Amino acid sequence: MQNVTLKVEGMSCNHCVKAIEGALEEIGASGKVNLAEKTVQVEYDENKVNVESIKEAIEDQGYDVV
Amino acid sequence: MQNVTLKVEGMSCNHCVKAIEGALEEIGASGKVNLAEKTVQVEYDENKVNVESIKEAIEDQGYDVV
Repeated sequence: MQNVTLKVEGMSCNHCVKAIEGALEEIGASGKVNLAEKTVQVEYDENKVNVESIKEAIEDQGYDVV
Repeated sequence: MQNVTLKVEGMSCNHCVKAIEGALEEIGASGKVNLAEKTVQVEYDENKVNVESIKEAIEDQGYDVV
C-alpha cells in the first residue's frame, strides 16, 4: 500500500468530507480529509490506483488539488 | 404565502445549500440560501408551515439559526 497526502482547496464542511472520501472509495482508495489543514491523506494500492486518478477523483467533486 | 428571512450560521458550500433547501422542500416550504449574506429566505404557506418548524428543519441539518 502507498500513502500520499494532497493539499486541497475548497473543502469547507462535513458534506465536502463525505463527497471526497466517497469519491476515493469509489475508485478503490481510502481517503481521510483534514478540514483544518486542508489536506487529504490517501492510502491506495499502487497496482490498482495511481496519484493521477486520485487527483482526478477529487477534482471531479469540484475541488482544487494544489 | 408568507416570507421570512433567517440568519443562519455554518453554511459554507453548495452541499450546505442543497441540504437546507432540500430540508425546507420536505416540509413543504421553499428556501433560497445566500451563502455570502448567511441568510435563508423562505416562502411558505402559513396554513401548513410555521416559522418554528422552518427553524427546526434548518437546525436538524446541523446549522444554527441566529
